Amino acid sequence: MISESAILNCFQHLVDLNKDDNVIVGSGDDAAVIKSIEKDLVHSVDISKINSHFPEDSMPQDIAYRSIAVALSDLAAMGAFPSFISIGLTSNITDLKWYKQFTRGVEEILNEYQLKLIGGDITNGEISVCVNVFGYAYEKNILRSTAKVGDLIYITGPLGEGRKGLEDWKNNQQTKYIKKFFKPKVDFYKSKYISKYANSCIDISDGLMKDLSRICKSSEVGAEIIYENIPITNDINDLSYGDDYKLCYTCSPEFRDNEFISQDFHIGEIKSDTEIILNKGNSSINFKKHGWDSFE
Amino acid sequence: MISESAILNCFQHLVDLNKDDNVIVGSGDDAAVIKSIEKDLVHSVDISKINSHFPEDSMPQDIAYRSIAVALSDLAAMGAFPSFISIGLTSNITDLKWYKQFTRGVEEILNEYQLKLIGGDITNGEISVCVNVFGYAYEKNILRSTAKVGDLIYITGPLGEGRKGLEDWKNNQQTKYIKKFFKPKVDFYKSKYISKYANSCIDISDGLMKDLSRICKSSEVGAEIIYENIPITNDINDLSYGDDYKLCYTCSPEFRDNEFISQDFHIGEIKSDTEIILNKGNSSINFKKHGWDSFE
Repeated sequence: MISESAILNCFQHLVDLNKDDNVIVGSGDDAAVIKSIEKDLVHSVDISKINSHFPEDSMPQDIAYRSIAVALSDLAAMGAFPSFISIGLTSNITDLKWYKQFTRGVEEILNEYQLKLIGGDITNGEISVCVNVFGYAYEKNILRSTAKVGDLIYITGPLGEGRKGLEDWKNNQQTKYIKKFFKPKVDFYKSKYISKYANSCIDISDGLMKDLSRICKSSEVGAEIIYENIPITNDINDLSYGDDYKLCYTCSPEFRDNEFISQDFHIGEIKSDTEIILNKGNSSINFKKHGWDSFE
Repeated sequence: MISESAILNCFQHLVDLNKDDNVIVGSGDDAAVIKSIEKDLVHSVDISKINSHFPEDSMPQDIAYRSIAVALSDLAAMGAFPSFISIGLTSNITDLKWYKQFTRGVEEILNEYQLKLIGGDITNGEISVCVNVFGYAYEKNILRSTAKVGDLIYITGPLGEGRKGLEDWKNNQQTKYIKKFFKPKVDFYKSKYISKYANSCIDISDGLMKDLSRICKSSEVGAEIIYENIPITNDINDLSYGDDYKLCYTCSPEFRDNEFISQDFHIGEIKSDTEIILNKGNSSINFKKHGWDSFE
């Protein structure tokens, strides 16, 4: 088998190729940043595919809503608010009703976040939604690469709700969690104050352990987290499952009592040693599988 | 069966949804235009899929190069030069060698047009490349919707070369046309002067007849073209086959003798009657199939 990171390594040498003065942040973060008027333009691309990111028998409006929401989550992780999107839709459905329902989901989320649809493409094939999102920083862009030793680590909400939602849906159980999977809410309200106080931020899409490890790798630091401080929904696997779309950020301890920060979950601290240690009771847990990889 | 235009109609009501002062041109043209510093940012998205846009046994570097080139063609059609791109890659290949070769094609075209890769996403599935391109207008953006009655219609090169290239490749014949299919060159040199003189422009990706009809529909005009003036490679079906990536533009007759314009192929004229008439010898041909539709 082949891992996503092995594939991404093949692209690594392209990242620094050619210079463009308008590109402030290029590949490697949640989103790219492009010089613009007053506020810089933030852009990210995210693919959601049938049977990988959503089940085969998902409702078309849910496919649309979820695909766009998870793409928007990358903007929130950059401390940016969303402005417009474009969609590359691949679909082999031949019933027009499906497309009408799909656009209903697009319309719902466009209206919810007051977004403009600025373009797209459509082609024939297995259902897949490539969503391009564009926005502008609230205050400043929050990168993955600027966590500092001594920073406190926060997450903005409980883990595992999406995971439970998908299981409940598969088991035909009507619970409040199903919405958490199909219609995740993006924390733009939180993103706004995070962009003011945080040193680094990422959205938890592939599991806390993997996404936190991305902050650590980019910032060349490590982390120590306390299991008991992490709000979970199911069990310890919530830490590596993903589909959370909560934000994980780090900020200086001086903001510990800040009215916004203090409402989030303080789960650990950034360390100089480049390892991630999960303390549970009196033992340290070695998390081998750091998250979800669509190729594994 | 279901047509692409029937599907696009489902999205029509989303086009004018919500307002964004930064969006100067939204959905419906070759690309969107976003307010930026000095020059506005032009953005387009284009999906290339295995077995639809390129054959199954294409070389990975050709898949990369071609997918990016055809996406860049939309910028040329807007009178814009390319600056940076992001890629959403779907692939089910498990051999790393494939990805290394794919990135070689990416690298080649990045260097050829001096582009920066600013981001991307990768997921597991049937091979598909969703390419997002970004650029800035040379002079001004050339839209589809601003052709004027009396405009002369030009194309920038012969039709059917890509079509012949693909056939030659399938028949194992080594000809100069194969490159025209797998490595189409984007006419940015021509795009530059077109952006100065033309009233409307589109790139010929789905066949001259279909793409010209898009200019006519957007501009609420018609066209009369002369078959004998159209440079073709194979036969009359070159007019509807597509894969040309030449530009089709309209401009005022006052530029007929312009040093740049006079080098292109003058194939007809924009008329007030909203029909497209193809004159061949003494007869008028009724082109029923106006181009290529990936859902037909």
